Amino acid sequence: MAVIPVELAGRSYEVRVGSGLLANVAEECGAMLRKQRVPIVTDANVERHWRAAVDASLTAAGKEPRWLVLDPGEATKSWDGLSRAIDWLLGEEVERGDHILALGGGVIGDLTGFAAAILKRGCGFIQLPTSLLAQVDSSVGGKTAINTPTGKNLVGAFHQPALVLADLDALDTLPVREMGAGYAEVIKYGILGDRPFFDWCEGNGAKVIAGDKAAQEYAVTESVKAKARIVAEDERETTGTRALLNLGHTFGHALEAETGFSDRLLHGEGVAMGMVLAARYSARRGLISGEDAERVATAIASAGLPSELSSLGLNVSGKMLAAHMLHDKKMDAGTLPFVLLRGIGEAFLDKTVPLDDVAEFLDGQLQV
Amino acid sequence: MAVIPVELAGRSYEVRVGSGLLANVAEECGAMLRKQRVPIVTDANVERHWRAAVDASLTAAGKEPRWLVLDPGEATKSWDGLSRAIDWLLGEEVERGDHILALGGGVIGDLTGFAAAILKRGCGFIQLPTSLLAQVDSSVGGKTAINTPTGKNLVGAFHQPALVLADLDALDTLPVREMGAGYAEVIKYGILGDRPFFDWCEGNGAKVIAGDKAAQEYAVTESVKAKARIVAEDERETTGTRALLNLGHTFGHALEAETGFSDRLLHGEGVAMGMVLAARYSARRGLISGEDAERVATAIASAGLPSELSSLGLNVSGKMLAAHMLHDKKMDAGTLPFVLLRGIGEAFLDKTVPLDDVAEFLDGQLQV
Repeated sequence: MAVIPVELAGRSYEVRVGSGLLANVAEECGAMLRKQRVPIVTDANVERHWRAAVDASLTAAGKEPRWLVLDPGEATKSWDGLSRAIDWLLGEEVERGDHILALGGGVIGDLTGFAAAILKRGCGFIQLPTSLLAQVDSSVGGKTAINTPTGKNLVGAFHQPALVLADLDALDTLPVREMGAGYAEVIKYGILGDRPFFDWCEGNGAKVIAGDKAAQEYAVTESVKAKARIVAEDERETTGTRALLNLGHTFGHALEAETGFSDRLLHGEGVAMGMVLAARYSARRGLISGEDAERVATAIASAGLPSELSSLGLNVSGKMLAAHMLHDKKMDAGTLPFVLLRGIGEAFLDKTVPLDDVAEFLDGQLQV
Repeated sequence: MAVIPVELAGRSYEVRVGSGLLANVAEECGAMLRKQRVPIVTDANVERHWRAAVDASLTAAGKEPRWLVLDPGEATKSWDGLSRAIDWLLGEEVERGDHILALGGGVIGDLTGFAAAILKRGCGFIQLPTSLLAQVDSSVGGKTAINTPTGKNLVGAFHQPALVLADLDALDTLPVREMGAGYAEVIKYGILGDRPFFDWCEGNGAKVIAGDKAAQEYAVTESVKAKARIVAEDERETTGTRALLNLGHTFGHALEAETGFSDRLLHGEGVAMGMVLAARYSARRGLISGEDAERVATAIASAGLPSELSSLGLNVSGKMLAAHMLHDKKMDAGTLPFVLLRGIGEAFLDKTVPLDDVAEFLDGQLQV
């Protein structure tokens, strides 16, 4: 098991990565579970795989697990899902000093974390991420949110978990397409700030997706280390450092919006395609070589992720895609910061990108 | 005009107290209004009195005021009111660096502040409190919340405003009963921590309620100073200092719950009655003299506020009132901290109060 500390003044916590963590959840959480009742929020898919093991660990420790099982899928990250979770937690008499367990992927983690953030103005919670995406990205760093009809993650809070247990065993039940989508966020850490890790990903990405435990432990651990470093430096995305984590996200978000945030394009797939576009747009601006941009595209394609915009079958113009970016929550007084590359492993924030140039670039990509 | 700084690491702000602040709101807010559009959340009652003056100031400064006018009353502080405010703010394209104006009493301030706290994980907001209660208590210190069917203020956030403008002119249109309810929070600062201010209140409370501007400015300024001191010391209610502000609130909350959080007993009236009960219960425990407890009761009664539990016409036992306290959000692992008095001006937090003793005490008070 690897243990990565997330260093935040007064609210430091550990991310533990390894096998067997969920089957041993009571011991791993220890004194954070201070009462007999333990509230757990999950979805029906995750419940099917993990309820028995979690129940066994908790009841053996003399605890009484209490389950809220929500519908799987993004639609649960809504006002309705939030008020349902809050009402249930209030009914369970959860107090400020208690810890709520969030067992699931990004939807469950984001929703439960946000509920914990605002319940009685802030209760404790523990992330038990079961998807690769959640383990390497959303469970670490304290961003919590729900969606509204206007857009994704537009309502939320910064609220750090007290502990994160990333159990690699949970990845065994994940559909391969979701593994790939999660892997996009793994390779992202290489592209944005760690050239040697990018090199490692080129050679080992397929093993991570195929289920090699040693490769998975390395990939998750390195990803969490990178994220922990960035979050410790810029918890609330005010200095620009944390914004580097949005590499591929501005392009990706526009693609997700265009495809209706549906199964047509998973979030990680949008990010993967978005990173290719960010690399190619960086090349267009003369920041990196065309060869480096294509090396990014090849690494992403070889993980089974989309790397050609023209292959997505969108009936859309570059201008229409750029219009989606106007509603990005990072828009600030008329400018939208883009994460671009000066090299593989050297991302930076560019606040001077003209949206009409982006639209023109996208037109070219759509027609390739 | 008095200016009171609220000193918080990295998020200090000013509370300005005086006349003419709303009529001059554009200049008072200055560069905090960085765009032409200025979003303002208010209720229909406040709008009737203040929209013209606020519009005049903003349009003269080249701004375009945008209004969301909600229904007056506690029912607006709900999931429904919150999602309505958020949807409207998203439609207005409010960004993280913008400031939302909250023009109204505690309901508008709490709701708008909470919406600002979670919109895009945190936007700026400015409190323009128009009730005495909001000016001396709820607009300062960053507690924001909504109610749920389970109870009041159970969902919320700590989110500090960027500026508070307490315009004494707004008090002129307040019903006298609401002035009295707000005054309960004024005298509270004397009882909990400032004996000379309590003495001043004994002689000047009637003037504050009757509309004497000099007395109002002194009362609001001293109250805000006291609150600012406490909030600076313990922003998130973790050390026990901020908890002293709950003097009278645990008893008061039980009375509000028993009367259905209705017009039968306003929040400030519940706090007033609660402070008398806290003083008398402190006397029962031998902490203060019976004379001091009655001096508190007399000062509260002379401001037209309830000071005798038996006069409220409740058909209830002490045990039933104590049961309401079990759902207090300050309950922690089976104990409920009570704010008691060692003297007038010397409140302290007692975590050892047995609820059955409180119930017995309340039985006595109900039968007087």
